[in-house]
Amino acid sequence: MGARREPIEYAAATAEVRAVYDDIMATRKVDWVGNFWKVLAHDPPTLRRIWSNVKEVMRPGGALDPLTKELLYVAVSASNGCHYCIASHGAAARKHGMSAAQYSELLAIVGLANETNKLVTALDVEIDPQFL
Amino acid sequence: MGARREPIEYAAATAEVRAVYDDIMATRKVDWVGNFWKVLAHDPPTLRRIWSNVKEVMRPGGALDPLTKELLYVAVSASNGCHYCIASHGAAARKHGMSAAQYSELLAIVGLANETNKLVTALDVEIDPQFL
Amino acid sequence: MGARREPIEYAAATAEVRAVYDDIMATRKVDWVGNFWKVLAHDPPTLRRIWSNVKEVMRPGGALDPLTKELLYVAVSASNGCHYCIASHGAAARKHGMSAAQYSELLAIVGLANETNKLVTALDVEIDPQFL
Amino acid sequence: MGARREPIEYAAATAEVRAVYDDIMATRKVDWVGNFWKVLAHDPPTLRRIWSNVKEVMRPGGALDPLTKELLYVAVSASNGCHYCIASHGAAARKHGMSAAQYSELLAIVGLANETNKLVTALDVEIDPQFL
Amino acid sequence: MGARREPIEYAAATAEVRAVYDDIMATRKVDWVGNFWKVLAHDPPTLRRIWSNVKEVMRPGGALDPLTKELLYVAVSASNGCHYCIASHGAAARKHGMSAAQYSELLAIVGLANETNKLVTALDVEIDPQFL
Amino acid sequence: MGARREPIEYAAATAEVRAVYDDIMATRKVDWVGNFWKVLAHDPPTLRRIWSNVKEVMRPGGALDPLTKELLYVAVSASNGCHYCIASHGAAARKHGMSAAQYSELLAIVGLANETNKLVTALDVEIDPQFL
Repeated sequence: MGARREPIEYAAATAEVRAVYDDIMATRKVDWVGNFWKVLAHDPPTLRRIWSNVKEVMRPGGALDPLTKELLYVAVSASNGCHYCIASHGAAARKHGMSAAQYSELLAIVGLANETNKLVTALDVEIDPQFL
Repeated sequence: MGARREPIEYAAATAEVRAVYDDIMATRKVDWVGNFWKVLAHDPPTLRRIWSNVKEVMRPGGALDPLTKELLYVAVSASNGCHYCIASHGAAARKHGMSAAQYSELLAIVGLANETNKLVTALDVEIDPQFL
Repeated sequence: MGARREPIEYAAATAEVRAVYDDIMATRKVDWVGNFWKVLAHDPPTLRRIWSNVKEVMRPGGALDPLTKELLYVAVSASNGCHYCIASHGAAARKHGMSAAQYSELLAIVGLANETNKLVTALDVEIDPQFL
Repeated sequence: MGARREPIEYAAATAEVRAVYDDIMATRKVDWVGNFWKVLAHDPPTLRRIWSNVKEVMRPGGALDPLTKELLYVAVSASNGCHYCIASHGAAARKHGMSAAQYSELLAIVGLANETNKLVTALDVEIDPQFL
Repeated sequence: MGARREPIEYAAATAEVRAVYDDIMATRKVDWVGNFWKVLAHDPPTLRRIWSNVKEVMRPGGALDPLTKELLYVAVSASNGCHYCIASHGAAARKHGMSAAQYSELLAIVGLANETNKLVTALDVEIDPQFL
Repeated sequence: MGARREPIEYAAATAEVRAVYDDIMATRKVDWVGNFWKVLAHDPPTLRRIWSNVKEVMRPGGALDPLTKELLYVAVSASNGCHYCIASHGAAARKHGMSAAQYSELLAIVGLANETNKLVTALDVEIDPQFL
């Protein structure tokens, strides 16, 4: 057993894992499952739990529309430097209509927010009463 | 001179600094300036430069609407734990219509993205060709 | 001289560096030295200092048993996304008995802690007096 | 509505929120609920979801004993600088037997891991085949 | 359109982008442009804005000499684990005279600062009045 | 025993701890000891070890002059948002001659480096061969 875990393909998966894969594909209306889920499948309760969280948090019909939700996911992932997450949620955002121009503006905000977040924190700026 | 810098009020500011304060107030249609700018005012070129960046990146009329832009700024700031930034851009987002339910969903995405970002990175998941 | 530093092998090392390599191998009862040490060897005082710190902090006989110490090291490294550190301390943890199931639970905690850490910080939750 | 959310006390909570508070108290065998949950209560589905995750991940009977689980949670929280989380999971760890000496060793590992994580990442050290 | 953006070479660039490339080469007295700028070129206003910031912040003639400025840029980039940034600003620092011994000391400070930063934050140490 | 540790004053310290305090004061030519050391004193081996590291890494006579070393420490601490560390190393930097203008330039570099570090990492920019 090494530190890295190989993806578990559908054909090699247990019934418990296949049930989650099936739900992912049905929910997303696709016929394949991403490597993140296939790697989590080494730990079926975590696979089920994380999928259940993603399904609930990202489900349509909430106060934010699906595109905005994916844009937020991409922005946080870009800020954290998670390439897989930028790629997977970037693909989801494009499916919901994200244009190249919107992605450029998103990245500009991520970069600028990191700059001002650091300056504000380093300078220990007091919150203005108008913001409370 | 200590590590912390006190806000420079309009009355005590130089003409160079006042010009930036005036532009901030005119652009935002408000009659006050936040502490971040007043603290940056100890370094007028940086005050001018950072304000110029914020003004350009957050200006209306781009590919993303103003509310979405502020939501993205709040999400990155929440992920980075910058309270002042959450407060100031949260106020801007509310001014553009962010509801309490939308803020709750934003926070849920920030939390979940940080969880999956860490798992994906720790597990060194390979990007699926479908995402490229 | 580029930004990346190549590992310095035992045969090419100075006596000062070999003395540290020898101590690493003797302490760990192995006949090889990891790339981290071979890269640090470009700066012998830092090689000696960092090894001395690791040897002291991770030595057996303290209040925490060796497996728990390695689990903590892996958890922090996973949270920080350091693949080499996850691999090297993961190998040490497995040598001390870490099972695949324990590694799965560790990762689940790392993911969840990052989620709740971010939510708590963003919401600026006040510490309950019961915790003090 | 400001950026900060005030804790919702039991007496002021809806039946949906009270059900979660009751489950937290029953599971932990205590007669009070921490501020984190009271603040999350502004968003009942998130309150229920996060509590359900914490309950599942931290439940006894897994591959890691309860003390080790809390130590890992404290270590990640310390590495992320979340004071509330250090305080709350530190209290839980002490309840499970964490001594002052164990906490000191944990902090030493968190500090050292952050140092070596940064050095390894900056130096872009290649993973030794022995670790795979 | 995938998540990754390919560098835009001079020959394929618009006049707007070429103008920035020309200014980068003239300012740095080199006959090539780095991949960072070629990737940013997908979004010309951001290319122009970021270059304008770098040019202003890193320009000679300020209170810090050019070598010190590059050392600071490398240190922050090393702390953030940005390999491209370590490589590019490391090259600039070497051009301004950074020796291998200075780079080693810089890395030692980055490592140690991350260790003590984490310990101080986790322990929530109160600032001594002598520092204010 | 709570999560926070109170500073241990000289009068209440053991001989082992006093020996470190004495060395700190003698090395720095001051008659007081900062709260960081007084809090670490709950764990004397860690107090001794961390002080020994700081003393070695920050000692004069290396390849970088003392002011540059403190500037690097402040920059990393500002990037990590450690207020105590900004205050303590900022005071040391001022003692070595850091001017207000130099501190302003340092902060501008910290902010900008965080912005470009995030953009470079999110865009997964390939390192130019010229930098290697």
